[in-house]
Amino acid sequence: MPIDSRPPKEIRDDIRRGKFGGVTAGLAPGFVQANLAVLPKDHAYDFLLFCQRNPRPCPLIEVTDVGSPEPSGVAPGADLRTDLPKYRIYEDGQLADEVTDIVPYWREDLVAFLLGCSFTFEWALLDAGVPMRHIEQGRNVAMWRTSLACRPAGRFRGPMVVSMRPIPAAMVPKAVTVTARFPMAHGAPLHIGDPAAIGITDIARPEWGDAAQFLPGDVPVFWACGVTPQAVALASRPPFMISHSPGHMFITDLPNHALSVI
Amino acid sequence: MPIDSRPPKEIRDDIRRGKFGGVTAGLAPGFVQANLAVLPKDHAYDFLLFCQRNPRPCPLIEVTDVGSPEPSGVAPGADLRTDLPKYRIYEDGQLADEVTDIVPYWREDLVAFLLGCSFTFEWALLDAGVPMRHIEQGRNVAMWRTSLACRPAGRFRGPMVVSMRPIPAAMVPKAVTVTARFPMAHGAPLHIGDPAAIGITDIARPEWGDAAQFLPGDVPVFWACGVTPQAVALASRPPFMISHSPGHMFITDLPNHALSVI
Repeated sequence: MPIDSRPPKEIRDDIRRGKFGGVTAGLAPGFVQANLAVLPKDHAYDFLLFCQRNPRPCPLIEVTDVGSPEPSGVAPGADLRTDLPKYRIYEDGQLADEVTDIVPYWREDLVAFLLGCSFTFEWALLDAGVPMRHIEQGRNVAMWRTSLACRPAGRFRGPMVVSMRPIPAAMVPKAVTVTARFPMAHGAPLHIGDPAAIGITDIARPEWGDAAQFLPGDVPVFWACGVTPQAVALASRPPFMISHSPGHMFITDLPNHALSVI
Repeated sequence: MPIDSRPPKEIRDDIRRGKFGGVTAGLAPGFVQANLAVLPKDHAYDFLLFCQRNPRPCPLIEVTDVGSPEPSGVAPGADLRTDLPKYRIYEDGQLADEVTDIVPYWREDLVAFLLGCSFTFEWALLDAGVPMRHIEQGRNVAMWRTSLACRPAGRFRGPMVVSMRPIPAAMVPKAVTVTARFPMAHGAPLHIGDPAAIGITDIARPEWGDAAQFLPGDVPVFWACGVTPQAVALASRPPFMISHSPGHMFITDLPNHALSVI
């Protein structure tokens, strides 16, 4: 994975000018990256309420003013219409286009939501010496829908999606305390151990991502996943919605440590 | 202070039936009490966004569905129209009435917000052995408007209000770590030491509450205060708003420990 340690603003400028269009893993290490969801104002109240009621899968780090593409709290001067490498456009809940710039799609009634992501969380685990099997094995993290329901809000309802990481048994307590310090990056695990207890029937077959190989003594540990709000929003078939393309995140000016509560 | 250790539901039932009408300090110790703000749907989006942007003064623990007085997340079956001992009714930002039951004022377009309160926070400090001077001295906590601005959201803007507690110098780090674990009850202090640095000119004259007496070696420690959202909401002169009367809080079914992130 190539590492680009320039400040976030310089990297965003390259993305804005079309000089970079790939996934953002490895860019501006140490800074918070975020998931993007853009919805019309008409849907924004329900989505904001859904995030308030489901903070583990939906850690909101920024909500723009109606019509404004500037995330002034986490990256003043940035433009969410141009500063992500790739976007997905959805109409009536169906993928309609994938683009590198959403200026032509922007409207005065749109609200952009930025949600904390697992990069912050995995950085904290690695920094604490907890191994990440999927990274060692060069795979995507494994994800499943669970039998745990989110608390509904208005038109939004659906199951919680989790990501799973095999953790050496002796490091499970450390994995819990380290991630608990970051409620804005999904926080502590939702579940440790038996996958069936949360409705996962086959740990070898994820619904998204790749199956990770367990090493002897590894225990499956499950965290709430940022795929949840996007899946829930699309399931309600909003007439219009924009998200980042998978892996093509927004890079904020916040150091990862800024999201730690203790 | 009289202590009533019955479960929250029994105490709420007494309040609902008019058998109890006083302040809620000392009731259901160990359970989270909450500030109430009720606004029309038309103002609810801005208020929800204001809370998202200012989590330290505005820790949202519950938002009801539009028109519903049931806080189903924190006290299923409770009724926010009858289960607080006393309410204040505001019209155009002015106090219009103080009542013990808001059934006659309830409307289908109202949304109720419950915000975490300093009781949880002071319980955590006392439990960790940090003395609370204002409690020892039988006074209310001292509060001030500061020169720190909240992040505006729609029609809501204004200064941060803080509460101040004198803390023995040797216990300041403990006071920080203990409260940091409770972001849903205002979290870690905003400021430690020099009051002038946050625009407080006279530490002996609070704007609300009583001045606490400092013991030798005590340091002033400032936390974001739940008066902030109410002051900010009223300053925008909403046509209609309801709040709890000071000290007459809503008692939830959540144990204080449920708000701890670690």
